[in-house]
Amino acid sequence: MWRAAFISLRPRSHLVWMDSVPKSAASVRKILCEAPMESVVQVSGTVISRPAGQENPKMPTGEIEIKVKTAELLNACKKLPFEIKDFMKKTEALRLQYRYLDLRSFQMQYNLRLRSQMVMKMRDYLCNLHGFVDIETPTLFKRTPGGAKEFLVPSREPGKFYSLPQSPQQFKQLLMVGGLDRYFQVARCYRDEGSRPDRQPEFTQIDIEMSFVDQTGIQSLIEGLLQYSWPNDKDPVVVPFPSMTFAEALATYGTDKPDTRFGMKIIDISDVFRNTEIRFLQDALSKPHGTVKAICIPEGAKYLKRKDIESIRKFSADHFDQEILPVFLNTNRNWNSPVANFIMESKRPELIRLMETQEEDVVLLTAGEHNKACSLLGKLRLECADLLETRGVVLRDPTLFSFLWVVDFPLFLPKEENPRELESAHHPFTAPHPSDIHLLYTEPKKVRSQHYDLVLNGNEIGGGSIRIHNAELQRYILATLLKEDVKLLSHILQALDYGAPPHGGIALGLDRLICLVTGSPSIRDVIAFPKSFRGHDLMSNTPDSIPPEELKPYHIQVSWPTDSKAAKAH
Amino acid sequence: MWRAAFISLRPRSHLVWMDSVPKSAASVRKILCEAPMESVVQVSGTVISRPAGQENPKMPTGEIEIKVKTAELLNACKKLPFEIKDFMKKTEALRLQYRYLDLRSFQMQYNLRLRSQMVMKMRDYLCNLHGFVDIETPTLFKRTPGGAKEFLVPSREPGKFYSLPQSPQQFKQLLMVGGLDRYFQVARCYRDEGSRPDRQPEFTQIDIEMSFVDQTGIQSLIEGLLQYSWPNDKDPVVVPFPSMTFAEALATYGTDKPDTRFGMKIIDISDVFRNTEIRFLQDALSKPHGTVKAICIPEGAKYLKRKDIESIRKFSADHFDQEILPVFLNTNRNWNSPVANFIMESKRPELIRLMETQEEDVVLLTAGEHNKACSLLGKLRLECADLLETRGVVLRDPTLFSFLWVVDFPLFLPKEENPRELESAHHPFTAPHPSDIHLLYTEPKKVRSQHYDLVLNGNEIGGGSIRIHNAELQRYILATLLKEDVKLLSHILQALDYGAPPHGGIALGLDRLICLVTGSPSIRDVIAFPKSFRGHDLMSNTPDSIPPEELKPYHIQVSWPTDSKAAKAH
Repeated sequence: MWRAAFISLRPRSHLVWMDSVPKSAASVRKILCEAPMESVVQVSGTVISRPAGQENPKMPTGEIEIKVKTAELLNACKKLPFEIKDFMKKTEALRLQYRYLDLRSFQMQYNLRLRSQMVMKMRDYLCNLHGFVDIETPTLFKRTPGGAKEFLVPSREPGKFYSLPQSPQQFKQLLMVGGLDRYFQVARCYRDEGSRPDRQPEFTQIDIEMSFVDQTGIQSLIEGLLQYSWPNDKDPVVVPFPSMTFAEALATYGTDKPDTRFGMKIIDISDVFRNTEIRFLQDALSKPHGTVKAICIPEGAKYLKRKDIESIRKFSADHFDQEILPVFLNTNRNWNSPVANFIMESKRPELIRLMETQEEDVVLLTAGEHNKACSLLGKLRLECADLLETRGVVLRDPTLFSFLWVVDFPLFLPKEENPRELESAHHPFTAPHPSDIHLLYTEPKKVRSQHYDLVLNGNEIGGGSIRIHNAELQRYILATLLKEDVKLLSHILQALDYGAPPHGGIALGLDRLICLVTGSPSIRDVIAFPKSFRGHDLMSNTPDSIPPEELKPYHIQVSWPTDSKAAKAH
Repeated sequence: MWRAAFISLRPRSHLVWMDSVPKSAASVRKILCEAPMESVVQVSGTVISRPAGQENPKMPTGEIEIKVKTAELLNACKKLPFEIKDFMKKTEALRLQYRYLDLRSFQMQYNLRLRSQMVMKMRDYLCNLHGFVDIETPTLFKRTPGGAKEFLVPSREPGKFYSLPQSPQQFKQLLMVGGLDRYFQVARCYRDEGSRPDRQPEFTQIDIEMSFVDQTGIQSLIEGLLQYSWPNDKDPVVVPFPSMTFAEALATYGTDKPDTRFGMKIIDISDVFRNTEIRFLQDALSKPHGTVKAICIPEGAKYLKRKDIESIRKFSADHFDQEILPVFLNTNRNWNSPVANFIMESKRPELIRLMETQEEDVVLLTAGEHNKACSLLGKLRLECADLLETRGVVLRDPTLFSFLWVVDFPLFLPKEENPRELESAHHPFTAPHPSDIHLLYTEPKKVRSQHYDLVLNGNEIGGGSIRIHNAELQRYILATLLKEDVKLLSHILQALDYGAPPHGGIALGLDRLICLVTGSPSIRDVIAFPKSFRGHDLMSNTPDSIPPEELKPYHIQVSWPTDSKAAKAH
């Protein structure tokens, strides 16, 4: 009894055991025995039940075997660069170089087939159940204002370029103006960010837009979409998803994409210290937006080592310029820290009540400006969760999918380069919150938007908004508040003038979503032919050089950096 | 009784008549009466049946009307650049500039919604009924050898470029090697052909590949696919489709994409003239592949004018360097042509029998090398069909969809630049016909391929082939016969070495198919945001200039043509 490794039934994940061939057919036996692993063999024979006791209930084909009559070697396989077994550790570079072999692994087959099935169900839901129209939009388009991350495509007209868009945003809004009131597309998008881990230069989003809809309408559509398309082998999705304002997410989890699978929430303990004599807390509280905040690490005293606490303090000082004070209930462990001991002694009852601290917990306390303190504690919350999990604590149930809407984002943020100017928190077409419209003309920084993010297990998997449908309001925001060159978007402003209906939409990041659903470590595991960290295709050596004469039709030439020019000369 | 033109129900093609408002609500009446055409109005009211006799059975909503209670003007529409009525003639430039308004027309709404529905049914057929996996392949890829029509995308590495592929050909074959044995994708493809009418720089194909399949397998899959996805309001598709060899198509219709909705086939009448005394026929027949061919234009004597015949003769002389002899049954009409008269008198019975000529027909006769004579008559056949149809003859039933497989193409063609060298008739991965493999090593020009084209009403709407799965054969064809630089395709050759299964596939041109199904005059009518003839987006002014400093990250600069540099200096 033996096994042919890559037979015609293999691609559909149905490996079949083959019975020993009859003694007469020595040639058949020779072909099958001598074919190298992963070769393609065509056999004919009879499917029979396996002998009693030899069935394998774990395999879909575990109850049958084939009595082989004839065999033909269709394609022999050369010596492989690695064995195709899921447990074999291979470097990512090797996997990407031989992607066509890596795709044969059980995990890649599962991931790509599940992706296809989920997308098919999404299409069924949108198209057949909800009357959406699948419309393809161009990818050779015009550069958007500030589109520094867009890929350029030279045309055959001197100095004229197309741009590969980051999303079909403009087109989907124009479709609403065009009366195609329910649009969706599984859209290819492009973002040129150089080398960022877990980002791809081209990625896919489930892109949706509809007319005459409000925030709740989009949200329940998406909840239904995910519920409908969710794989059967997972626990069903429970709807509606909980919702949280941006302000609450920041205050409680220190981030706009909270992982709500576990607690360790940020607690404001400023009131405990209103009349404190501890100097650094006093200082912090006296400043504008000054607060004292803390998180409680359950059983932290048991699982965190002294060097963990030290590295947490160092991280806080280095990256946030903030001090972190670890406080243990058992004052013996407050390593020579009189402040921690003092807090534990004097504020013990209040602290225990507010933080719900237990004997073996440790409280990480910080003081400072609200946003900064929250952001730091949000980072430490995730950091400590990772640490506890490496020590064997199960904080985040891997079968749990915890969806969350985050809403009421600010419409504008101060520009990083010049904080007195404003930029869109998301994009300039986002509608202001109806209750804040009057503030646009007085205190635009305070205006909340009708943007919403969908978060899954601490990852942003989608975002959308109700859009501005009034040309005048759009022009005011673009020209007066954002100081953008309105000419580049004149077609949008014009379109809004011709009877644009109220509309809104959302885009879900498909690669990220499938990555989370399949529990894959990287989005590269749910993409058939991904690029490397540096944006390369390692299989085909892409991007590649082009001879100068082939650049001529595009009227471009390469500007070699001076050092590399020198290098070329030698 | 009056009508609001663009109300909330309009986008779903449900215009609704609204009843006169109650006298009390003068404000409501004012809003509705004063809103400009195509404005967005929100009304609330009661849906009631129309008064007996006022129903409109031609409208989906023709039996109801709304008694309006409240009305709100959500967005007023400015003066439109054109009226949104299908019968309104607009220039294509105007339509493209205001595409979002043009999309509101009944025809564009119908075309895009039908396209979405057909594609959805195709997905259902492939994915749910036939176990295909929808897999996305990259569009930022490596330039293919000879890919002169590919768009380039500069990367952020000096001198390194991606290329936007013309098709996912390489990826789909690699997926077969990767054990994903049934792949499909509604794939965006790119072809940079400058300005060709009815071509788009980006277009969409239904891309399919499967393992362990032969030509018949792919063909019946596609027949089933079209039958399954065909719109209900058309006559059902009859399968299997007829099939014709390339040689037969050329000999009978003068083209590899015959329009089989009508006759007027090319007839070889060489035998009639074997012993002719007519000099130019004698000359032609004495040369290699020399033939005499003709087509019969039914009722041509009635519908074709003398100047039509003259322009046909001029066309033939100018473009094919061939003489065309028009022969009428009635010798009086053979305008002073002794040759035509002589043919009619001496060869009358044979000619009438072979050509099935009737009293009012005209025969167009030419003599020369087989392929050339056929090509010319193929062109004239279509030309005359157009002429007859402008004169009111119905040759091609507009409700008829005539599918045809064309098979047994040559594998290689002589290169245009150097006819002693070979190039692939389709692409270098096409497998040779099994009966011709031995000729690869002796007379490669004679090898037929396993390529097949799908033709609909004289348009090529798809093409595919069984591919080479043997690395050695692929290497021989690439290196020895085609003299290609094998390095550029080394990843493909390597992949074939690792146990590639036999495989084949096809790609259907979706834009063209939907264009034919909807009876649209141009593929631009089935694409939401098409480019102009010159590859421009007239709405947003794309492609556009980019400031030199924004080209820096891509290490490119524009090479201005000398005259335009001079122009810039002034």
